[in-house]
Amino acid sequence: MKKIVLVPDSFKGTMSSETICTVMERAIHTRLPEAQTVSLPVADGGEGSVDAFLTALGGEKIFLQVAEPDVDAVDGFYGLLPDGTAVVEMAAAAGLPQTKLRDPERTTTYGVGELLAHAAGRGAKKLILCLGGSATNDGGCGAAAACGVRFLRAGGECFVPVGGTLREIARVDISNLDPAVRKLPVETMCDIDNPLCGDSGAAAIFGPQKGADAAMIARLDAGLACLAERMERDLGVSVRDLPGAGAAGGMGAGSVAFFGAALRPGIETVLDTVHFEEQLRDADLVLTGEGKLDTQSLRGRVVIGVARRAKKCGVPVAAIVGDIGDDVQQPAYEAGVSGIFSTNRLAVPYEQARLRAETDLAATVENLLYWTTAMRRRL
Amino acid sequence: MKKIVLVPDSFKGTMSSETICTVMERAIHTRLPEAQTVSLPVADGGEGSVDAFLTALGGEKIFLQVAEPDVDAVDGFYGLLPDGTAVVEMAAAAGLPQTKLRDPERTTTYGVGELLAHAAGRGAKKLILCLGGSATNDGGCGAAAACGVRFLRAGGECFVPVGGTLREIARVDISNLDPAVRKLPVETMCDIDNPLCGDSGAAAIFGPQKGADAAMIARLDAGLACLAERMERDLGVSVRDLPGAGAAGGMGAGSVAFFGAALRPGIETVLDTVHFEEQLRDADLVLTGEGKLDTQSLRGRVVIGVARRAKKCGVPVAAIVGDIGDDVQQPAYEAGVSGIFSTNRLAVPYEQARLRAETDLAATVENLLYWTTAMRRRL
Repeated sequence: MKKIVLVPDSFKGTMSSETICTVMERAIHTRLPEAQTVSLPVADGGEGSVDAFLTALGGEKIFLQVAEPDVDAVDGFYGLLPDGTAVVEMAAAAGLPQTKLRDPERTTTYGVGELLAHAAGRGAKKLILCLGGSATNDGGCGAAAACGVRFLRAGGECFVPVGGTLREIARVDISNLDPAVRKLPVETMCDIDNPLCGDSGAAAIFGPQKGADAAMIARLDAGLACLAERMERDLGVSVRDLPGAGAAGGMGAGSVAFFGAALRPGIETVLDTVHFEEQLRDADLVLTGEGKLDTQSLRGRVVIGVARRAKKCGVPVAAIVGDIGDDVQQPAYEAGVSGIFSTNRLAVPYEQARLRAETDLAATVENLLYWTTAMRRRL
Repeated sequence: MKKIVLVPDSFKGTMSSETICTVMERAIHTRLPEAQTVSLPVADGGEGSVDAFLTALGGEKIFLQVAEPDVDAVDGFYGLLPDGTAVVEMAAAAGLPQTKLRDPERTTTYGVGELLAHAAGRGAKKLILCLGGSATNDGGCGAAAACGVRFLRAGGECFVPVGGTLREIARVDISNLDPAVRKLPVETMCDIDNPLCGDSGAAAIFGPQKGADAAMIARLDAGLACLAERMERDLGVSVRDLPGAGAAGGMGAGSVAFFGAALRPGIETVLDTVHFEEQLRDADLVLTGEGKLDTQSLRGRVVIGVARRAKKCGVPVAAIVGDIGDDVQQPAYEAGVSGIFSTNRLAVPYEQARLRAETDLAATVENLLYWTTAMRRRL
């Protein structure tokens, strides 16, 4: 075993993907001191996504102050990768950790737009937008406004819409959009299928965790519906039936309508960006994993995304996971996973298991390598 | 993978070793329909040990009524293996399931002796005595009496001692021992090191679970000490410092003193009896396991016993276990284990995990084989 590629998702609530890579590296070198490891921690689109990309590829973390309602400004940041790709995570400028405001009628993505414009101004060649952890429901209007898009009330007055004022948008004028932003290719990491509006839309599904009650959800939903109408009429972009439009309080829709973004499953963006196939070329083994592998995560999430590409290159994949759901083994094998190994070594509940997570992960990886090299020597 | 040998211990409280073999066989044939499996469920010395030997080797289960205090008789049984070895388990004639009597001053191993004498009379070539699950504390005197050994009170009266009357033994006379029993080689499966008497002796350690209180423990212990003295004086056998003499209410000592038994770790007896090394000759893999692999079970229990022999024959061993204790991996590898795999697939407590035990065991075995054959194809 000469080269092992590590490309794990985080174990939510337990270990970041960077931590997992570090633990795996150490375990590998305990058993195989000569092995080369390549760590590609997966950015899951939420808080920490910029760091994950920077860990995998190197690059620069650029900090700047961005606007935030109710405070003067907050410290935002984005990543600039060596190939000129900028990575912006909403959690860094419009996220629940950034704003203390639990009111999706007032929170804004304005700061996200500032980061985006800054990156475009620095000559970024491409932008990756990570949608996780937003506190907003403004359909991306704040971000658009920060980049020059004008939103006009019926009386002609220009304003920056927030969740609570989307219904006041009479017209959207994109003619003033920052030219650097306009020509910047944007790729939005989006792992949910929710539409913009309706029973499974942004407000209904994600409003409550952002602080909305039933009445507010109805108002937010009506606002997003109004926005969709204006986008269609004024920008010629229909987001009504677009899966993922409802991600991040409608930022899915906004990134498409205002910035011409492509919505893609996050893992595909990550694997393209880290040049996964190139890393596979001389690899003997891929280790991936996530906190829980279940029938839900089988649909396009990390393990399966990794396995599909590794299968094409003929490299075996071990999925090291926390919990293994029922009925996932066979579909996972078919996608290209060669084995699924749980880090659960004792029959204890999650609250206890998480305290042992790093040790158990290390022991699981060591054991898998010991077994595999023992069998290889023999077979 | 042409031939796989299955030699698991039971998962205590969850699955018998026979059940484990059945589940493993099915899982193996799902992945490798052509593979030959050899099931050697391990008798752990307790209830079900006779059945485990019969499952592994075939043979006959012989039923007969044996004496029991407070009831007329109970149905006892022993196993007669194809090579003429008889297997007697104490649980079948002096066990907690057999007698309702929770009084180790009155319970007796007499029925065990009847089984032993019956087997000897049928021409058994060897006898394996399984000590687990006894309800007795008579030092094996009952069993000896059933085979012709005479215990005499000070007045010369002959009696059958029980736990409460051991101190009344003035003399032991072995001259009437059934000649068939006398010439029968006896091997006692014994996995504990407790001495006959004292703080870690039979009465002190195992008395409480048989129904003894502190005062009774003191009386039982004094009785066993008296018996040891008589054994030394009248039979010329010193059991005082013999590790394991205190097993099964002193039946460890009794089997040595009255029947010339050899005390051996159970797994060694089992592996010899099932001709484990012969089965290994053309085997590609051994699957073993136990409910919990920990630093305690590393000392001569099933997994390690199996691994040591398989290592000599160069056959890899996978240990499929419930819980994996800390700090067992490296010592297990050194003994010959090539990999340890927990059946825990979800972070749930044992009470929940045990309900999923068979499914989880099957999935774990299937996954291990899938991984191993995938890696073999590649490497």
